[in-house]
Amino acid sequence: MGEWYRNGEPVGEISIASRGLHYGDGLFETIAIRAGSARLWEYHAERLTQGCERLGLKAPHTDQLLQQVTDAIRQSDVPEAYCIAKIIVVAAPGLRGYGRPRPIETETYVGAFLTQPVALDKYHKGLDTLLCETRLACGSPFAGLKTLNRLEQVLARSEVLEARLFEGLTMDADDRLICGTMSNVFLVAENKISTPQLNRCGVAGVMRRLVVDVLADTDCKVQEIDINREQLASADEVFLSNSQFGLLPVKSCADWCWDVGPVTQEVMRSLAEQGIRECRL
Amino acid sequence: MGEWYRNGEPVGEISIASRGLHYGDGLFETIAIRAGSARLWEYHAERLTQGCERLGLKAPHTDQLLQQVTDAIRQSDVPEAYCIAKIIVVAAPGLRGYGRPRPIETETYVGAFLTQPVALDKYHKGLDTLLCETRLACGSPFAGLKTLNRLEQVLARSEVLEARLFEGLTMDADDRLICGTMSNVFLVAENKISTPQLNRCGVAGVMRRLVVDVLADTDCKVQEIDINREQLASADEVFLSNSQFGLLPVKSCADWCWDVGPVTQEVMRSLAEQGIRECRL
Repeated sequence: MGEWYRNGEPVGEISIASRGLHYGDGLFETIAIRAGSARLWEYHAERLTQGCERLGLKAPHTDQLLQQVTDAIRQSDVPEAYCIAKIIVVAAPGLRGYGRPRPIETETYVGAFLTQPVALDKYHKGLDTLLCETRLACGSPFAGLKTLNRLEQVLARSEVLEARLFEGLTMDADDRLICGTMSNVFLVAENKISTPQLNRCGVAGVMRRLVVDVLADTDCKVQEIDINREQLASADEVFLSNSQFGLLPVKSCADWCWDVGPVTQEVMRSLAEQGIRECRL
Repeated sequence: MGEWYRNGEPVGEISIASRGLHYGDGLFETIAIRAGSARLWEYHAERLTQGCERLGLKAPHTDQLLQQVTDAIRQSDVPEAYCIAKIIVVAAPGLRGYGRPRPIETETYVGAFLTQPVALDKYHKGLDTLLCETRLACGSPFAGLKTLNRLEQVLARSEVLEARLFEGLTMDADDRLICGTMSNVFLVAENKISTPQLNRCGVAGVMRRLVVDVLADTDCKVQEIDINREQLASADEVFLSNSQFGLLPVKSCADWCWDVGPVTQEVMRSLAEQGIRECRL
């Protein structure tokens, strides 16, 4: 279940009046800790800060927050060489009802979790995935953010676990491809790379951003576009990104099959050069 | 902040591993307690049970749940003559990640809260309201349900409080009228009553259902339809429903004004006959 800390002190419970419980009034980040360091910290900190702004919450000071993350990992029993830190920033408890108390304070919790690397053969051979029946609602005011409102992912994830798979792809209510249940998705077609734009729903992952940034100045710049079912089906290669596993090829979804191809492998090499060791095959 | 109970015992905290906090993996009900009884209990119980089914959660036994509600109100310091009970049903804590542990257990919490009746002149004169800038996402898998994913309402409610108003109306991302931030909405035009259909987003309130049910066999049957901005603007009368206040006329929203008219008053009389005493003017 992980070990949790608040202001450096271990904590096992939160107030039942927490606005996190009642409304999901907050945000989170899930950070890969590798060799004692918070990987892609700047990206996590930036998304969290922007998320707080959009939600009208006071963002934690990111330097202090990084210190809290580092301290939590050291205090905990999880190996700092390879583990996960989770940050939750949540609106402080208030009266009953949707309205926040004013001024609104935030509470920050940091958790430390064990994790295992994904088996190497998945990087080589790719994943079999599912096309989830659960659809994501369109036009969310929180598109791109990692808020505590994650019921869509919970239901989509239940489908994946039910099918005994590692991951599933999700579409939005208008039949556009958006992401995996815990990952972002990229297509390769005619040597061009595209990924769904996330202006209506979905979470803009930090590893997605790294892929976009790393390829920004190459002739293989990622296009952020709307992607429909036919474009997914006709892609040459499909791969997923996630803060923990880095990048994984997809070899199938429903009846569609794809090769683990040269573009995916090239992007994996680029990520490995950026320090994403999971991609160093 | 309310007094909370679980299985008859007072409780002030929940596990920080709660899937309610992390994902909003659960549902709630907010029930008017009047003269010691849970008003519209059957409607609340039915929505909660259907919600649990759609979320894949085990629903609490409704008779036992009603007993827990009654006991909580009696145990608490709130006056059982007139107060609010809140039920939270939440997926039990599990491992980190969206995937639920299997089999999934649920936890049920019951809270007792003080409340005040809405001032009588609001029933007579109607409310000034706001058109919220916050939009509701369309095509939600949880349309109609009262899940713990309520960030849209939190942001919309912030707009209402900022404007020092009682309520605001919300549209969805496709510019359809859906509801108030904590109420459902009805329009009267040419002596016909309509209310937004809630198949893409919104919460199907119990008082909304009572209005629909009470008028079902009259020649003023409520039509559940898509409603756009122009239809709202050109309505003759507008009113809101909510489990606590019953029914309240709306006299303005943004630049639009409406009369507190005869159809609204007739519906209020019908609700009063059904035991919604707030509507007995």
